[in-house]
Amino acid sequence: MGDTRIVLSEREMPQRWYNIQPDLPAPLAPPINPATGKPIGPEDLAPIFPMELIKQEVSMERWIDIPDEILEIYKLWRPSPLYRALRLEKALKTPARIYYKNESFSPAGSHKPNTAVVQAYYNKKEGVKRICTETGAGQWGSGLALACCLFGLKCTVYMVRISYDQKPYRKVLIRTWGAEVFPSPTDKTNAGRAILEKDPDSSGSLGIAISEAVEDAASHDDAKYSLGSVLNHVLMHQTIVGLELKQQLKIAGEEPDIIAGCVGGGSNFAGQCFPFVKDKLDGKKIDFIACEPTACPTLTRGAYRYDFGDTAELTPLLKMYTLGHRFIPAPIHAGGLRYHGNAPLLCLLVNKGVIEARAYHQKEAFEAAVTFARTEGSLCAPETSHCIKAAIDEALKCKETGEEKCIVIAYSGHGFFDLASYEKYLDGELIDYEHPDEKIKEALKDIPEIVEPGA
Amino acid sequence: MGDTRIVLSEREMPQRWYNIQPDLPAPLAPPINPATGKPIGPEDLAPIFPMELIKQEVSMERWIDIPDEILEIYKLWRPSPLYRALRLEKALKTPARIYYKNESFSPAGSHKPNTAVVQAYYNKKEGVKRICTETGAGQWGSGLALACCLFGLKCTVYMVRISYDQKPYRKVLIRTWGAEVFPSPTDKTNAGRAILEKDPDSSGSLGIAISEAVEDAASHDDAKYSLGSVLNHVLMHQTIVGLELKQQLKIAGEEPDIIAGCVGGGSNFAGQCFPFVKDKLDGKKIDFIACEPTACPTLTRGAYRYDFGDTAELTPLLKMYTLGHRFIPAPIHAGGLRYHGNAPLLCLLVNKGVIEARAYHQKEAFEAAVTFARTEGSLCAPETSHCIKAAIDEALKCKETGEEKCIVIAYSGHGFFDLASYEKYLDGELIDYEHPDEKIKEALKDIPEIVEPGA
Repeated sequence: MGDTRIVLSEREMPQRWYNIQPDLPAPLAPPINPATGKPIGPEDLAPIFPMELIKQEVSMERWIDIPDEILEIYKLWRPSPLYRALRLEKALKTPARIYYKNESFSPAGSHKPNTAVVQAYYNKKEGVKRICTETGAGQWGSGLALACCLFGLKCTVYMVRISYDQKPYRKVLIRTWGAEVFPSPTDKTNAGRAILEKDPDSSGSLGIAISEAVEDAASHDDAKYSLGSVLNHVLMHQTIVGLELKQQLKIAGEEPDIIAGCVGGGSNFAGQCFPFVKDKLDGKKIDFIACEPTACPTLTRGAYRYDFGDTAELTPLLKMYTLGHRFIPAPIHAGGLRYHGNAPLLCLLVNKGVIEARAYHQKEAFEAAVTFARTEGSLCAPETSHCIKAAIDEALKCKETGEEKCIVIAYSGHGFFDLASYEKYLDGELIDYEHPDEKIKEALKDIPEIVEPGA
Repeated sequence: MGDTRIVLSEREMPQRWYNIQPDLPAPLAPPINPATGKPIGPEDLAPIFPMELIKQEVSMERWIDIPDEILEIYKLWRPSPLYRALRLEKALKTPARIYYKNESFSPAGSHKPNTAVVQAYYNKKEGVKRICTETGAGQWGSGLALACCLFGLKCTVYMVRISYDQKPYRKVLIRTWGAEVFPSPTDKTNAGRAILEKDPDSSGSLGIAISEAVEDAASHDDAKYSLGSVLNHVLMHQTIVGLELKQQLKIAGEEPDIIAGCVGGGSNFAGQCFPFVKDKLDGKKIDFIACEPTACPTLTRGAYRYDFGDTAELTPLLKMYTLGHRFIPAPIHAGGLRYHGNAPLLCLLVNKGVIEARAYHQKEAFEAAVTFARTEGSLCAPETSHCIKAAIDEALKCKETGEEKCIVIAYSGHGFFDLASYEKYLDGELIDYEHPDEKIKEALKDIPEIVEPGA
């Protein structure tokens, strides 16, 4: 029997990120400027992103060196441990071997800082003084607040008002790291004021918060904007997770049969599985399972089309699975998975059949999370619970078939800020949501008609 | 420059606990039965503790083997990492080298599970079906709930009502691990009913909760009681931390000049420093700094006397520093440090001058915690903040003197459940407490007059 925990030394930490773009099975459709209908160029993005990140966004280099300054910062929580879930296996009586790559030990409690510190670094290097962003439940906002703090940058977080009021702890965490955080909509931006004029009691949305953060960045010379998922460079930064995982599985003498991860914007799962995608394209048998909530079934019921990233139609158009940019997901507790779209890179691989998508109800996901907590000890985030459910399902299948599969869980974060939702689960108060076909069809109608360049 | 993080492999994890009793500079005064005035024997403790723990409590063996089953469970979070706080050093511009031994990655978020799983194990082995305990802020209650869950035992937690109402998250964590948790005083025990009769709205106290848990255990054949600090065996279980620390410092090529830890009941700090005490007694120069709050200055202003462990005078009498068993500490946010007494083993070493005690105000402690969070990233528990303050003070002294001391922080837990208190600090709403001499003098009057056996 192997070790319970496989830990890499700092010296074994990957020195390069993996950029999947040159290895894709088909070319990635470019982002489109909604005003011109043409692919956007670096100059379109320069007002809100530093040039180095824009270069990474379109790079065709397979490997990109991680700067020494980032490697130093990564050491505050990386390399992250890979655990063998021996006690869960035993409880399930499965012949499968279950591992979980644990990203919950970063100071912000999730994988988010892996890209936040990189974005802060390049902004700092290019003279930016302040970074603006939006946050829903607060995982990304706290990750970026930490990153800005570590690099001596100012940070402004527009937090969806309903989360700001209902989840006060994440807000305090953001403030502890020295960032300013406002409930969005605010009266500080045109976008916010326009909303407040119509509805002074607006509880906000991620779409509105994005509009405020982008406007704030674009209208101040010393400020830029930062996004916590979806974009190519964000996914690439997260590949440090999968690259570590690959080394750790090798030490354990394992080849993964299944890698399961939850998907909101896609960066967590992409980070874990992209370094294994080429192996699959080269003929290896690996199942990548992208787990989403039935309440926001982007990959399983959305259309693969060009759509806006935000409700207010301010962002470039991205080719992705989408439920329509005005789709309103049901109010589930995995706030990080409530996004109408998804990362274009991940969507392409789903579309080509390389990655499989599955949707789960929140009650069965919480049930899996509690099973995990009662066997392995650790309390996962509601987002993470979705892929634990997938892993348990697969392990139980192995029990039927006798297959000794190696299953890897992308354990993206802890649930210490989500105990109110655990309480609802324990009290039997959680509700499952399944959108009727009619609602999905209606939402898809908002997707603009775009002719794909070169199509 | 060395590594940021020194990690031991599972194979390097200590296989034995260190029992300091044979190495004490003076004999430990025995616990006394308040009814007889005589030292208590194993038979007095048998109704509430399993025999193996009673044996450990009085053992004079220097090393006690850790059972294989415990070693397996420890691997869920042990060995814990030792970090070099390079960024804090840089911010302080100190020539000192600062390390922190990080116990916050256990599933319950602190050092508490290190003894909880051991106590659950021995209880299980001796046929116990259910363990009863009390908890204030909830750290210990959640640690024991986890432990009982891992060993398939039932667990009943009496949680001080004011914490139960004000800190709902810890309560949910306890429930998630399958334990039952009641706001104390309850109507389930004579002790609880007696209080409720006088005061139906009683907000409870640790003393009352202890009485309820002990009564519940003593009045049910298949149940025992469990304590999270103070007792010799609890401190011994925690020495796994200091034993790991010793190995890790050796790998780093360091000899500690200072080890600082916070002290509530004493088990955290004892676990970190006891394995180094013999080195000091043998002539090595090491400063052990026990950090307590000015709001509950047990070691710095208490008397070294026999006293009860609880308000209701139900426990044996222990020789310890005490503020009197009816002392009511000011309502500071480090709930885990609000105890009138302290572990007899630790108190003896303070009394003999081996360990130094210092008291800190909560505002300066939170200030240190925020400095730490903004340099190292991690957000510590309010309890832990007290020794971070001590370490920063010592590092700044080194800046004055030019000494390159090696300072170790006993980083006992994270602060994710304590963000309400961080918010108060950030908003300038925290209040410092310093008890007037008169109040301390009055409280000390409650200490019973006991003739020490053999004195």
